[in-house]
Amino acid sequence: MLAAVCHGKKDLRIDTLADRALVAGEVRVAVAYGGICGSDLHYYHRGAVGDFAVREPLVLGHEISGLVIEAGPQVRGLTAGMKAALDPSRPCLACRYCRAGRSNLCTDMWFLGSAGRMPHSQGGFAQHLILRQDQIMPVAHDADLQLIAMAEPLSVALHAVNQAGPLNGRRVIVTGSGPIGLLTARAARNAGAIEVVCTDVEDAPLAVATASMGATGTVNVRKDPEGLARFAADDAAFDVAFEASGSPDALASLFRVLRRGGRVVQVGMLPPGTAPVPVNLLQSREFEFIGAFRANGEFRLAVELISRGAVNVAPILSGTYPLASAVDALELAGDRSRVIKLQLALSASAA
Amino acid sequence: MLAAVCHGKKDLRIDTLADRALVAGEVRVAVAYGGICGSDLHYYHRGAVGDFAVREPLVLGHEISGLVIEAGPQVRGLTAGMKAALDPSRPCLACRYCRAGRSNLCTDMWFLGSAGRMPHSQGGFAQHLILRQDQIMPVAHDADLQLIAMAEPLSVALHAVNQAGPLNGRRVIVTGSGPIGLLTARAARNAGAIEVVCTDVEDAPLAVATASMGATGTVNVRKDPEGLARFAADDAAFDVAFEASGSPDALASLFRVLRRGGRVVQVGMLPPGTAPVPVNLLQSREFEFIGAFRANGEFRLAVELISRGAVNVAPILSGTYPLASAVDALELAGDRSRVIKLQLALSASAA
Amino acid sequence: MLAAVCHGKKDLRIDTLADRALVAGEVRVAVAYGGICGSDLHYYHRGAVGDFAVREPLVLGHEISGLVIEAGPQVRGLTAGMKAALDPSRPCLACRYCRAGRSNLCTDMWFLGSAGRMPHSQGGFAQHLILRQDQIMPVAHDADLQLIAMAEPLSVALHAVNQAGPLNGRRVIVTGSGPIGLLTARAARNAGAIEVVCTDVEDAPLAVATASMGATGTVNVRKDPEGLARFAADDAAFDVAFEASGSPDALASLFRVLRRGGRVVQVGMLPPGTAPVPVNLLQSREFEFIGAFRANGEFRLAVELISRGAVNVAPILSGTYPLASAVDALELAGDRSRVIKLQLALSASAA
Amino acid sequence: MLAAVCHGKKDLRIDTLADRALVAGEVRVAVAYGGICGSDLHYYHRGAVGDFAVREPLVLGHEISGLVIEAGPQVRGLTAGMKAALDPSRPCLACRYCRAGRSNLCTDMWFLGSAGRMPHSQGGFAQHLILRQDQIMPVAHDADLQLIAMAEPLSVALHAVNQAGPLNGRRVIVTGSGPIGLLTARAARNAGAIEVVCTDVEDAPLAVATASMGATGTVNVRKDPEGLARFAADDAAFDVAFEASGSPDALASLFRVLRRGGRVVQVGMLPPGTAPVPVNLLQSREFEFIGAFRANGEFRLAVELISRGAVNVAPILSGTYPLASAVDALELAGDRSRVIKLQLALSASAA
Repeated sequence: MLAAVCHGKKDLRIDTLADRALVAGEVRVAVAYGGICGSDLHYYHRGAVGDFAVREPLVLGHEISGLVIEAGPQVRGLTAGMKAALDPSRPCLACRYCRAGRSNLCTDMWFLGSAGRMPHSQGGFAQHLILRQDQIMPVAHDADLQLIAMAEPLSVALHAVNQAGPLNGRRVIVTGSGPIGLLTARAARNAGAIEVVCTDVEDAPLAVATASMGATGTVNVRKDPEGLARFAADDAAFDVAFEASGSPDALASLFRVLRRGGRVVQVGMLPPGTAPVPVNLLQSREFEFIGAFRANGEFRLAVELISRGAVNVAPILSGTYPLASAVDALELAGDRSRVIKLQLALSASAA
Repeated sequence: MLAAVCHGKKDLRIDTLADRALVAGEVRVAVAYGGICGSDLHYYHRGAVGDFAVREPLVLGHEISGLVIEAGPQVRGLTAGMKAALDPSRPCLACRYCRAGRSNLCTDMWFLGSAGRMPHSQGGFAQHLILRQDQIMPVAHDADLQLIAMAEPLSVALHAVNQAGPLNGRRVIVTGSGPIGLLTARAARNAGAIEVVCTDVEDAPLAVATASMGATGTVNVRKDPEGLARFAADDAAFDVAFEASGSPDALASLFRVLRRGGRVVQVGMLPPGTAPVPVNLLQSREFEFIGAFRANGEFRLAVELISRGAVNVAPILSGTYPLASAVDALELAGDRSRVIKLQLALSASAA
Repeated sequence: MLAAVCHGKKDLRIDTLADRALVAGEVRVAVAYGGICGSDLHYYHRGAVGDFAVREPLVLGHEISGLVIEAGPQVRGLTAGMKAALDPSRPCLACRYCRAGRSNLCTDMWFLGSAGRMPHSQGGFAQHLILRQDQIMPVAHDADLQLIAMAEPLSVALHAVNQAGPLNGRRVIVTGSGPIGLLTARAARNAGAIEVVCTDVEDAPLAVATASMGATGTVNVRKDPEGLARFAADDAAFDVAFEASGSPDALASLFRVLRRGGRVVQVGMLPPGTAPVPVNLLQSREFEFIGAFRANGEFRLAVELISRGAVNVAPILSGTYPLASAVDALELAGDRSRVIKLQLALSASAA
Repeated sequence: MLAAVCHGKKDLRIDTLADRALVAGEVRVAVAYGGICGSDLHYYHRGAVGDFAVREPLVLGHEISGLVIEAGPQVRGLTAGMKAALDPSRPCLACRYCRAGRSNLCTDMWFLGSAGRMPHSQGGFAQHLILRQDQIMPVAHDADLQLIAMAEPLSVALHAVNQAGPLNGRRVIVTGSGPIGLLTARAARNAGAIEVVCTDVEDAPLAVATASMGATGTVNVRKDPEGLARFAADDAAFDVAFEASGSPDALASLFRVLRRGGRVVQVGMLPPGTAPVPVNLLQSREFEFIGAFRANGEFRLAVELISRGAVNVAPILSGTYPLASAVDALELAGDRSRVIKLQLALSASAA
């Protein structure tokens, strides 16, 4: 079977990989669609994500949906042909973080398509994939697997929202309107936020924010560098901020528009190293600056919200490419003026 | 009556000020003792605290105890001669923060001895002082007013502990062993922390930490720069960190020794501007970096803990000076190798 | 000016009362509309609410809107003719509960139309009313004061939702579909609940629940006593329950359909005395059974949600009666097969 | 090997049971000491605990310590002869509750000595026992295994305290001074409670409460039925209450002495069925009535606190009996005027 394998910086190949037999609790799936995430782009363009360098060939991809091919021993309730959302997280369930209900912080995590451990945790841009049964969440036989493949980024947005505390009646700002920023805006509105202002340096995603993601206001901070300041005349424009741009400048701007005691949730990944934070302001206004990393149980809800149509992720999908064109897709995926999210069609049935 | 008035950088004078008549709800007290806080030192040495510059003569001081002299109209339960702890906070009670139970973030706060508003909020290094009745907390007639004057810094430590969440069974680190750091260590132990490691650049306060404040370990980070690393072999040595040194380096070090999901409480004041924070680490480990500012209702508990002897603040008191020697006291108070906390004896009865 | 005054059980009179001059901070309003609440009905039918008996003539009413007539000394920003939502709560702002941010639990509360203190706190079914300025929340000049008068019951529903903790993605049941139950359903959906099942003993309010309040399912527990059980085959049908019926049977039923660790929020008032609770189940499943009393800061949000049209309260309004017909309105208001909420038109401008 | 087996009401036998071979991840231990818990008494006296009846022979016991005999395949770090605390909980780690960090609510729990599932989960009053490796917590070679066997009841008390929220500076009442009540008092004091009042119907455990468990006051509610009322003159004597007596009357009394917004933690088991709760008071004062069931991760802390001497459990141990005298011990264990906690010495090395 074929897979999109990163061999290093700018070196992505469509390799033929061998299948292996299943052991107890495993399930083989045919991957239908796989979304290209920012981390896939980092692996492709830089050969690394943050401190995690590609040290052996790495199948990319972790935003996937598919069909069950074969259920291994001791697997119940999953049969060939079932459509399913596929959770890229396989936590150990036994470490102190898993036992504390924070499996996204698991110290022995296998997360699809990550060079964070050695051997690497191979990813989902492959025609076949073996998962642990609890990573398979069946969906209806008429579910749209392209939309279902958006469950993972939506789960990240839902997790960010859960890290923010109750949003009912709150005023929210989201810096950065990539897929995660946009879905966070949508998730925040769904959780009761009465205002959500989205920022970006491009107009295209801001138009999607307003049209489809519930944004009540937008600021193009490139064209209108003082735009945020207009919202912040009283230094208490927002109760909660989500930093989803990965820009240190965006982060710094948030501490100026937040009410005292407000919370900043960091969901984007910044450049390596440190970023300047106005710590005295954080202290004297009792801000809460916290991280949101991947998802922790929100995957199931994400699938449910997409399945019910409670969150329409379609406006975020900008195009679908066959596996053979993965390099083209990766090259295009970073053009934020034209693209929000691209997907690969991976198995024959999806093509 | 006399008061210690800061007229600008290095310009402290013992001035004679006039008393005025009381209005409804006010109480006149004779201040007995007043502790010298870091902010008093900043006003004296730099003419400013953070962004707050002395723009008119400012009576310093906010860690005070005293005796009731006279109760104004509509005041109940307070009579001349009563000993009392004196709360330096006079929040408005009506703003959105007060109504939300966070009066330490009040936007119309009168806090003793602060240049944060104009006209300045005059302080407590004065023989007489007029307070709102809810700032007066009577104590027993045999209470030690020197110890009672420590209620304010203890309340700050208790507030930091409350900002940290439950500490029962937790491992804690406190960077900086000035009065606030030491009292935070004590308060954390009292709240159930099973380990508290204190750091400093001087040995003297670390000895107090171990002898009297419940520290289970100490590190002199000047003599032993790698000392903290020993505690952090597993990068999860501590559940909660309190930054009480005001050092950006100390702050940065904390993110390396904290378990995933751990919390850093910023209680010290850093140099103006920003400080570098490892934001990607904060994001991927879901750290919580939050501020603790002054106190919010913890003053009453602080008085009670001192009154009951549940917290012995005596080891922190390094000396008492008469009001006339305020300049000498302010000069000496910054010598951390010899001094933890100095107090002024303000009224005749206290002298 | 005229007011609807309860002199005891079944003794409601339209009395002429005198206006008085304003003191500092007070505002005189013309009450436009006043909704009839369950407590008004209790005063009228039983002469008491719970343990609070009518011991002197009591003007009823606390769900009101109106127009500013006159602003007293030291009042800012309120001028004659302004339309306003009128908050029935006047907490002391100074007691331990107010200072802790829980002013709905204030021990010195003046709540409109309540016999809970002596002299009674007179209510809002009056042509003129004097309020503290912070009870007046101006709305747009074209706001619909009938809808605005629903801000108080909506604030109660919002408070119940806030007491429930985050509802994002949660399954919710609301027992009792009176005005509070219906608005709680709406508020829970707005806060992200993915399922809300409403129960009642009448079909009419359940139809409103489905049509307008976001209910995803309903059960008429009179016609279909086993209906709830269908939802509870796995004893974990719901994450959160709101008891808004005042029925001990409804309360007991909730503990059978809630997942372990789930929360029951008691927002309805039960018959005096105790009610049977399955305490061992509460213990072994770690249920959280908590109260929700009036509102605590949610009034402002309620006004905003109605003003923006984010919550449409119109389907709950069943009719409007002139002040002179208050007795007829009170008699009719208890007929739950036909009426959800009735209002009185109080001042000439509203009639 | 021998074990104390309950065959039904009042039918406890010392049976000879066969050992079996270990599978991967299992460890065989020699049980040293086993404390007799209230549930063991219920099985012996009534043949049932709550709704769980003994339907096949059941080895009792779950408060145990011991020595490692043999480590099975894939077990690391445990070798023969090691002393260990033995956690009676073996949660599945995979159900929704385990994944949410609430493994004490696991729907597939194996808890030692419980008839809650069929086949029963056999207990620890046995000379040999097979446990999953994560149930074994090694202690120092000179640890006192009698004290270590108290880790389980201490973990229950610590869990109750964790369910109570922060106790720093809080006033606490504990109804019922059996082992759990006494240890809860101790744990509450260690967590910062400034007052802990214990109640009971016997003087003996109240004397222990004061002498060793940090109680600041006691009430013998049999001798002094109005004793509690003295603490409650202002109906806000306590912030938090722990119901550890299993008495509905004790539970009801708590709602009269708690401040508004206070929390009642139910840790004791009441008689089957329902208990009367003042629900209107719960609603109008926004009390929080929540359950505490067994322990959830607190076992490790309990072992650590006993090992360090931070909690001295010795005053609770009233006597030790050989396995052969288990019936005598069970008969005596219910005499609360003379006994707090009895233990069985189970293996030869412990005898």
